[in-house]
Amino acid sequence: MGERKKLLIALTSERNKYKELSKYSQIYWIEDLDDKKLDKLLPSIDAILVHPWHDRLNQSRLAKMNKLRIIQCEIGSVNMIPVKNLSEKVILCNNTSAYSTEVAEHAFALLLACAKRIIRFDNEIKRKEQMKFSRERAKDVVTLSGRSLGILGYGGIGKKAASLANAFGMKIHVYTRRKGLKESGVQFHRGRRGLNLMLRVCDAVLLSLPLTNLTRNILSANELNSMKSNAILINVGRAELVNAQSLYEHLIRNSQFSFATDVWWPNEGNGKETFQPRLPFLSLDNFIGTPHIAGPSAFISGTAIKPAVDNLVRYFSGKKLQNVIDKTEYV
Amino acid sequence: MGERKKLLIALTSERNKYKELSKYSQIYWIEDLDDKKLDKLLPSIDAILVHPWHDRLNQSRLAKMNKLRIIQCEIGSVNMIPVKNLSEKVILCNNTSAYSTEVAEHAFALLLACAKRIIRFDNEIKRKEQMKFSRERAKDVVTLSGRSLGILGYGGIGKKAASLANAFGMKIHVYTRRKGLKESGVQFHRGRRGLNLMLRVCDAVLLSLPLTNLTRNILSANELNSMKSNAILINVGRAELVNAQSLYEHLIRNSQFSFATDVWWPNEGNGKETFQPRLPFLSLDNFIGTPHIAGPSAFISGTAIKPAVDNLVRYFSGKKLQNVIDKTEYV
Repeated sequence: MGERKKLLIALTSERNKYKELSKYSQIYWIEDLDDKKLDKLLPSIDAILVHPWHDRLNQSRLAKMNKLRIIQCEIGSVNMIPVKNLSEKVILCNNTSAYSTEVAEHAFALLLACAKRIIRFDNEIKRKEQMKFSRERAKDVVTLSGRSLGILGYGGIGKKAASLANAFGMKIHVYTRRKGLKESGVQFHRGRRGLNLMLRVCDAVLLSLPLTNLTRNILSANELNSMKSNAILINVGRAELVNAQSLYEHLIRNSQFSFATDVWWPNEGNGKETFQPRLPFLSLDNFIGTPHIAGPSAFISGTAIKPAVDNLVRYFSGKKLQNVIDKTEYV
Repeated sequence: MGERKKLLIALTSERNKYKELSKYSQIYWIEDLDDKKLDKLLPSIDAILVHPWHDRLNQSRLAKMNKLRIIQCEIGSVNMIPVKNLSEKVILCNNTSAYSTEVAEHAFALLLACAKRIIRFDNEIKRKEQMKFSRERAKDVVTLSGRSLGILGYGGIGKKAASLANAFGMKIHVYTRRKGLKESGVQFHRGRRGLNLMLRVCDAVLLSLPLTNLTRNILSANELNSMKSNAILINVGRAELVNAQSLYEHLIRNSQFSFATDVWWPNEGNGKETFQPRLPFLSLDNFIGTPHIAGPSAFISGTAIKPAVDNLVRYFSGKKLQNVIDKTEYV
């Protein structure tokens, strides 16, 4: 047993959503602590809950945390966490699948917006550029039924997206590094050759991978050029899965190719996502962007918080943890 | 047996998609006939194929068509056909379900565009009104899973939409006049009271009814006021299912209520659909419009033509017809 574990919650949220944790630990909210109090507390902290990371937990502060054994992230992506500064004793857990429903729904909102040209048509009508009915315009519309969707990453989001694609009558292709997966109606692809093969046959491609050393720039010029010239590419993973320069040039050269994203490349200055990318994507008709809203909608509703809280309860109760990350992929 | 039946094709399309019919009938294309030839031919015509109707087939010409026994419409809506000028001997068939996949997909494109605020977010980012990440913006985003969808009209489109809604984890309500329907996971509502009850509980409502004497203005002020103030209303049936004035006032008063449509009220002059409605819908942020593109996408691909051709083949072969319309609902 020993003494009560100490948990530092380094995020801002509605506190009552975390009250279950007070049964298992002594909770400290980082926003209640000035620097002096925080520095004094750090050596006694056993666990941290973050979303996605906190600026005040810098390298020198992390170095003081000798008792730290677990960092639980409240989101699916742990790429903001300074893994190289963590001791080997620290377990890192993400909160994958907690946002799957909302993010997969958003992915289909973006996919259908591209396929049915919703934004372009609405804008044209409202700008009075489209005054008369024209059957010819329907040539730009893509029917999902019978088309092939390629999903990169088969975690919670990828699986939920596959089930939606199935309802739309799409053929489903999945790129994953996991071996031995077999599912009726899903064709699995592995390795570089598998990826390029999959990209060639798909009408739409969905990025739902985490950002790791293995996945950064997984789509660059070669891969984009493998895709159909009128394909639809959706990114709900992390922007850096796609090489920005290659994509920009690809969108310029292929006006029938569409890209829609909820995630954005970081600002070169502060490393944070910016909706004003360095390259002039926003002037392109075949670029659609939403302000990283899919995951937060699950956070706002609270459904995404519970699995992270439950995992920390498991830790404090000595039970087997879920969503443990292989830190070597992030160093 | 007798002599070969004569079919007048009163539409413009790729002729090779209709060649099956030449095995069963003598085909005449209206665009090949000047008025004199057309007038001479009409008394001998047995069947007409239209999409949705042809201006040259006016009342006096219809009166000459003593041998006419069937009008096959290539679209689902027969409300453009002058039913009151048809003899009792003429069977009227529509082409319902031929467009179901495309129209149901479009309905979900519009539903998700509203739920995820895709157009507003994309426009804000491109106009540089949304520069920084804000978790608060996610409060405007609706998760479909767990929400209730009410479907008015349970033909091909309604059924396909229900199957998509099921994949999204939505609760499904259906308003229909058909009796005795029972399906697991679908709650059926009938009559005025049933409709109002359904509208009160639904987060989103989809109009996939035909336009008949019974359905015109089925949603007016009372019904709109029964709906949740932040509900989403999608129209892929016919514009006149909704009273335009009531809807306009409702959208002005309820900024969180969204309306998205692929179908448009007719111009008062020529009775044809116009994308420039009399009321200033196009200036409203909570109004989304696409240029009647869902059905035509099935027509362009050709998938929608085959069922109409097949039905005429049934007629010429003396087999039982499908999609026979009760003309009294259109007089």
